[in-house]
Amino acid sequence: MIQTAVVTISDRSFRGERQDGSGPLLRQLLVEAGAQVITAHLIPDEADQISALLTRLADDDSVDLVITTGGTGPAPRDVTPEATRAVIEREMPGLAELLRWDGYHRTPFAVLSRGIAGIRGRTLIINLPGSPRAVREGLEALGPLLATIVALIKDETPPDGPCAPQPQRRLVRRKPAKKLRGIPLEGVLQR
Amino acid sequence: MIQTAVVTISDRSFRGERQDGSGPLLRQLLVEAGAQVITAHLIPDEADQISALLTRLADDDSVDLVITTGGTGPAPRDVTPEATRAVIEREMPGLAELLRWDGYHRTPFAVLSRGIAGIRGRTLIINLPGSPRAVREGLEALGPLLATIVALIKDETPPDGPCAPQPQRRLVRRKPAKKLRGIPLEGVLQR
Amino acid sequence: MIQTAVVTISDRSFRGERQDGSGPLLRQLLVEAGAQVITAHLIPDEADQISALLTRLADDDSVDLVITTGGTGPAPRDVTPEATRAVIEREMPGLAELLRWDGYHRTPFAVLSRGIAGIRGRTLIINLPGSPRAVREGLEALGPLLATIVALIKDETPPDGPCAPQPQRRLVRRKPAKKLRGIPLEGVLQR
Repeated sequence: MIQTAVVTISDRSFRGERQDGSGPLLRQLLVEAGAQVITAHLIPDEADQISALLTRLADDDSVDLVITTGGTGPAPRDVTPEATRAVIEREMPGLAELLRWDGYHRTPFAVLSRGIAGIRGRTLIINLPGSPRAVREGLEALGPLLATIVALIKDETPPDGPCAPQPQRRLVRRKPAKKLRGIPLEGVLQR
Repeated sequence: MIQTAVVTISDRSFRGERQDGSGPLLRQLLVEAGAQVITAHLIPDEADQISALLTRLADDDSVDLVITTGGTGPAPRDVTPEATRAVIEREMPGLAELLRWDGYHRTPFAVLSRGIAGIRGRTLIINLPGSPRAVREGLEALGPLLATIVALIKDETPPDGPCAPQPQRRLVRRKPAKKLRGIPLEGVLQR
Repeated sequence: MIQTAVVTISDRSFRGERQDGSGPLLRQLLVEAGAQVITAHLIPDEADQISALLTRLADDDSVDLVITTGGTGPAPRDVTPEATRAVIEREMPGLAELLRWDGYHRTPFAVLSRGIAGIRGRTLIINLPGSPRAVREGLEALGPLLATIVALIKDETPPDGPCAPQPQRRLVRRKPAKKLRGIPLEGVLQR
């Protein structure tokens, strides 16, 4: 069972000016997905505090997966991506890209998220935006991939089941229009 | 009204060997979009000059938005992305990604652009490629998002209207084929 | 004719525990595409060795294009992206993005690749994942663009033919559903 930590990053929720809806929703969705949420945190948009907490969760608590919500936008106090980048050792750019391009087809404003994802030690850290909607849609996009990534990070064999990498029949649906697919590869590098 | 600056980056246009078509087009499109273009520049592909100009526009002139055109490709003299990265404080990777993936569906060569986007102080800086076509298509993709981003960067409430983040009815069009959407989230993290 | 080098990065293949299928496939596909493969290498997942080899291929051997296969995933020994980033001078993020988003529509696990692409001197370096399938699909996506990129990096005129940037009639197929395209640009920046 995947050990997860949930981190809400929000000045207003931290000061009690707004109820934190995204953290509890994230916890609920992770539990429904079969993960164990062993710890949840609510901290302000302070880069040092964010970096310190992520480091502790990865190094001391050894959780498999940390998901943050909030602080990914362009506002002056939004520093979650920078605080996360400071502590990850190997970036996983494809997860942040997927969140944005999948999200864009639901709401164009998804591309405003500056969130990143990466690995520290044996822990995967992912930034989600602060809105409950972004949390739900982000988990829908990433959820089926997480068990495989966590297993690979720990050098374990990825799990079987509908989300296992092989065979991918249930997952793969070929896109009809393939841009450059029409051009045969033969000769394209001949000059 | 959004205060903008236009920066054409091109050795050949700077030396007068080619007329700068993209700068004037960019200025015209921004004005049509309702922005105020308070300054326009034409400089060669020199990283130091690019960095210095972007810094001045953000720090002294306090423009809301700087859009550059040119110098984003793979040619030896194309250094706009590096010169921009040197002066931004917080990257907005989703804007550059959107330009490439949206552009790719019009012309595959859009992915050759190495352009980036980011924030310095209260100023948004965006790299567009040098061709007039890329300028027009880039603004078509980013235009409806810019007023919201600029407002958020300045810690202001985003504007109402068809481009406001809420409600997004006019903007959102759900994609029919959702790759992993078919898989219920329940249990995917159970192992 | 484009001068290429193929680099397989795999502990298991290096130790002889698994046959290297991707390297020979990559070589075959490049030759079919009309490139000249002047050298092929098989090295373990050691960052220093990867960086040293890429540097030598770019600086001494002056190949136009180096394609690596393997070491791009989230496993602890996967360090190809970091070793590549250490030696490139100018990143080409759009190539890695294209591999992931095009790949995602074939298999969602394509987004797990952490591969990057970039330029060192006059040499283009691209990371592909380790599986033969990823090698084949990656070349299908990137192949038609490579001759143009290599020419631009060398400050040469891109080649004519079906893959030339102009005219792009055979390549361009406009996507029907354009998210924000419906909104006229006029006035979107007026507040």
